[in-house]
Amino acid sequence: MNKNQEEIELLKDQTFTTKRATVEQLERILFDPIKVLDHGFVRVIDYMGDDGAIVQAARVSYGKGTKVLSQDKGLINYLMRHHHTTPFEMCEIKLHIKLPIFIARQWIRHRTANVNEYSARYSILDKEFYLPNPENIAVQSKINNQGRGNTLDTQKAQRVLDILREDALKCYDTYMDLLNLDEETGEVKDPNKDGIARELARMNLTLNYYTQWYWKIDLNNLLHFLRLRADSHAQYEIREYANAILGIVEKWVPCAYEAFINYRKDAVNLSKTGVAALQSMLRGEKISQETSGMSKREWDELIQIFPYKHSE
Amino acid sequence: MNKNQEEIELLKDQTFTTKRATVEQLERILFDPIKVLDHGFVRVIDYMGDDGAIVQAARVSYGKGTKVLSQDKGLINYLMRHHHTTPFEMCEIKLHIKLPIFIARQWIRHRTANVNEYSARYSILDKEFYLPNPENIAVQSKINNQGRGNTLDTQKAQRVLDILREDALKCYDTYMDLLNLDEETGEVKDPNKDGIARELARMNLTLNYYTQWYWKIDLNNLLHFLRLRADSHAQYEIREYANAILGIVEKWVPCAYEAFINYRKDAVNLSKTGVAALQSMLRGEKISQETSGMSKREWDELIQIFPYKHSE
Amino acid sequence: MNKNQEEIELLKDQTFTTKRATVEQLERILFDPIKVLDHGFVRVIDYMGDDGAIVQAARVSYGKGTKVLSQDKGLINYLMRHHHTTPFEMCEIKLHIKLPIFIARQWIRHRTANVNEYSARYSILDKEFYLPNPENIAVQSKINNQGRGNTLDTQKAQRVLDILREDALKCYDTYMDLLNLDEETGEVKDPNKDGIARELARMNLTLNYYTQWYWKIDLNNLLHFLRLRADSHAQYEIREYANAILGIVEKWVPCAYEAFINYRKDAVNLSKTGVAALQSMLRGEKISQETSGMSKREWDELIQIFPYKHSE
Amino acid sequence: MNKNQEEIELLKDQTFTTKRATVEQLERILFDPIKVLDHGFVRVIDYMGDDGAIVQAARVSYGKGTKVLSQDKGLINYLMRHHHTTPFEMCEIKLHIKLPIFIARQWIRHRTANVNEYSARYSILDKEFYLPNPENIAVQSKINNQGRGNTLDTQKAQRVLDILREDALKCYDTYMDLLNLDEETGEVKDPNKDGIARELARMNLTLNYYTQWYWKIDLNNLLHFLRLRADSHAQYEIREYANAILGIVEKWVPCAYEAFINYRKDAVNLSKTGVAALQSMLRGEKISQETSGMSKREWDELIQIFPYKHSE
Repeated sequence: MNKNQEEIELLKDQTFTTKRATVEQLERILFDPIKVLDHGFVRVIDYMGDDGAIVQAARVSYGKGTKVLSQDKGLINYLMRHHHTTPFEMCEIKLHIKLPIFIARQWIRHRTANVNEYSARYSILDKEFYLPNPENIAVQSKINNQGRGNTLDTQKAQRVLDILREDALKCYDTYMDLLNLDEETGEVKDPNKDGIARELARMNLTLNYYTQWYWKIDLNNLLHFLRLRADSHAQYEIREYANAILGIVEKWVPCAYEAFINYRKDAVNLSKTGVAALQSMLRGEKISQETSGMSKREWDELIQIFPYKHSE
Repeated sequence: MNKNQEEIELLKDQTFTTKRATVEQLERILFDPIKVLDHGFVRVIDYMGDDGAIVQAARVSYGKGTKVLSQDKGLINYLMRHHHTTPFEMCEIKLHIKLPIFIARQWIRHRTANVNEYSARYSILDKEFYLPNPENIAVQSKINNQGRGNTLDTQKAQRVLDILREDALKCYDTYMDLLNLDEETGEVKDPNKDGIARELARMNLTLNYYTQWYWKIDLNNLLHFLRLRADSHAQYEIREYANAILGIVEKWVPCAYEAFINYRKDAVNLSKTGVAALQSMLRGEKISQETSGMSKREWDELIQIFPYKHSE
Repeated sequence: MNKNQEEIELLKDQTFTTKRATVEQLERILFDPIKVLDHGFVRVIDYMGDDGAIVQAARVSYGKGTKVLSQDKGLINYLMRHHHTTPFEMCEIKLHIKLPIFIARQWIRHRTANVNEYSARYSILDKEFYLPNPENIAVQSKINNQGRGNTLDTQKAQRVLDILREDALKCYDTYMDLLNLDEETGEVKDPNKDGIARELARMNLTLNYYTQWYWKIDLNNLLHFLRLRADSHAQYEIREYANAILGIVEKWVPCAYEAFINYRKDAVNLSKTGVAALQSMLRGEKISQETSGMSKREWDELIQIFPYKHSE
Repeated sequence: MNKNQEEIELLKDQTFTTKRATVEQLERILFDPIKVLDHGFVRVIDYMGDDGAIVQAARVSYGKGTKVLSQDKGLINYLMRHHHTTPFEMCEIKLHIKLPIFIARQWIRHRTANVNEYSARYSILDKEFYLPNPENIAVQSKINNQGRGNTLDTQKAQRVLDILREDALKCYDTYMDLLNLDEETGEVKDPNKDGIARELARMNLTLNYYTQWYWKIDLNNLLHFLRLRADSHAQYEIREYANAILGIVEKWVPCAYEAFINYRKDAVNLSKTGVAALQSMLRGEKISQETSGMSKREWDELIQIFPYKHSE
């Protein structure tokens, strides 16, 4: 890691002259790891374009027709609001990410990205695995089949961490043993023996071991990723990465970021029946879940956003 | 699993009348699991199109122009040879696959497919993990950084299996313990306790545990997958799946299968320098690795396919 | 066309036995062209899956966890509402479409589909071009840079049609002349001459000439296409195709269709500021465009859906 | 156009300081249009990465395992040769391209790219259309259904150009007339009339009119595009663009360019039967098309590359 840090410092010291669109705010954090979870990070390796590049691409599309939309910020809002997504694809970012394997498995489901992952067929995985903070260990939610409920008390949480750690360590011992490598030095342990193939030995590691990859994606698809993964329904661990990336996007393309928050992240999608229910409420009519045609859950979610009390 | 088998039998008993292109050979094995590795399988859930559908799509492209290429097989060979790939995209297949997680991680890198994976956020993973056959446990290759070398002798292989099994079982015990579930019955173990969230507990499982998914892909992208994964450089475990799928493709689209074998799978890509070297050989000229401009490895691979001995 | 009709009738007469999911409603219209515009059509060539296939794929993901969501329709609504889009990708449809080139150019921007287009490098394009109905010829909208305003009166519309027809015919004459083909018979006109290459001659045709293609897409991406192209902001001509396809989807997957209408097509996306404005209205507070933080246009659109009159 | 030239000069005068990978050779031609055909161009708007970025991404994948492949060029050759394509996806380029519509229609079939096209729904297309050079006007090939044969003599070519020009001009006159615009000034012609909607009027233009777009693509997909479109089977007009882009790639990533030429562009794909035939030839055996199992056309292509004369 120290060697990595050295390399990063070297990269940060180099500067070049370019005619390309350049974002000062992003240059400042280039190559710097932003810590996520216990051993993970996100760092920006490269980027292409800025808010201006979105506008520039849109103006190719709209040519002379856009004279009236002369201000860039207004144009970006307009594009976001009307789902004119292609100009946002004209910006690209490349991130280096270190993350637990079980999160990598969720992440990779977003197909519209370029990925180079550290290969455990070629190389040895480091002895680093994820353990949640005690305050993030929760019981299975009773109401949400895919979520967490209440947090465990400290003592119980500590016991969970102990057994997670114990199994992870035991599995890594076996891993190094199978590879015939010394854990401390990384060198061959017994020169009279051969380790089994790395592509086989790795199967003994638990899913909380860390992997890393380069991940390159255009802004439009990145925002789609963030809408799903910075959402409260997403698993806590991937949400932490999404939040770190949100901070990067804010520095990189501040206008697009603001439009995204307003028209996507904090927007609400009202179903046809939801629209009808709200219209009723506004007219002062009496309406209930039963008469609305909505499911209990959908109605509850609506009422949470638009508290409603019929005054009789 | 018995319940699954019952469901499969039910599906197999149902028949419908359709006007769609139908492949008798494939209908016969529809829904039937083809065993792969120790607990894995591949089974065909649905398909669209046949050899005729490739020809039909190509003829939209060619319209009246194809009169001379009247035979379907010739046309399919022509399309494959000239990389006219779009007609092959007009066939689609949906497979149900059960596979170890570390193989699923390789597999998912093929982005042009639709996937629904069993979710360990919602559900409990079964106590099934992959253990290689003793004859497939090999030491790390000395010449190939990503491959296997010689096989271990039986006794050593047995020891490897024993410790892999031990760790996998231990991790599953912990998994069920964290979930507060009884391993035998799958029921809540201690009614006064809560299990931790499934999305957390799963991180303790090792990478050889089995997962499963529905995987849907068009024929063109499937053939691309097979070219890479049925190749001798691919990891043994994924190759076993690729071979099972090759057998399915042969039943489904026999003409496309044959063209694929001839023009892709068993074809050889000769580099510019490789072409020049072969031309020299054919002219009876003296040529060696040094004078060929090829790297040692590339030259060796060429000579393996085209044995060459200059007669002085 | 008669020959085409014969071929279609032949296909319709053939029936096969299959174990695959089959949709009777769709089988009935299989291969039959649904007329769109003056010479265009959409016809279903093949399909994979039904409403049940969506549920089946979802249950792989959710396994035992979905017991509570036991009814298929409820599950499909749930998936649509929560943007769990992958199960909808498990259905696929293949359409044969005939459409004007300028519409094909819009259509092809949807990248997640498989396409085989009639090639004017290989074949001769038919003498068929699109002319709008007089009632669809409108002046450029003053308020919408990409739309139509009022319709022309019949006489003016007739003049527009006359000159469009004249240019299209003139260009086709030149096309056949360049190819050295007789327009009536399609045969070589002057046996002592050669026509120029088809790939060159085609450049003389106008953008309203018809082309045709096979288009294959999964249900999720199809619904995305329909949300954008059946929308009132879409150009009239492509909307006509989208509406025809909506009718097909309704027959094919009625539950998914209904969920799509409620949660997508007729849903409303409320921005963060829009939500705040509606909350104000419901609380009976006074709010105007100026105090809402919304643009004039956005406010007007909100008020159109949620008519609001502050009672002082 | 002068105004465009001014804007380009402005962009070229600006320079920024960046820590990102920067390619001096490419910076020199940034924003400068490279002329293609009569009115078309390609110009580089932005880029991400260089040869080093490919190596850097590969080293994430291979980690410590790559020590032996210590030289960058060797590693890039290795990656290209073994179809390890993902590191090439880590470079991205954004081009501004002006091209005839019938070429744009071929080009857009490459789906893995981001595109913003000039919209004729919003804006007026310029009076610029493609006319081939007389020496590029050829008759339809007798042997290749999709290609050109012999060139026309000058006089006949001139006649072809005359009628292409006449039709294109006539159609543009109508276009402006329908829009109620003055061709010279671009201003409204008759203030008492309304032009019809731009989205309708455009249908009267011929397919050789120029359009333009921003096109952004990663290096791996760009090389795939170039392999198909710089090929001798590609239509002359798109080949001209491909050749211009090849020159850009050579400046941008010289090592990847060289590997591409050797292992892709000038490489030869030998079918299984082709391999067997060559093996026979090398053994000095007698072999003919008939005994080779190859089609006439395939055999001829083989013999053209590997001239073979059996010495009896």
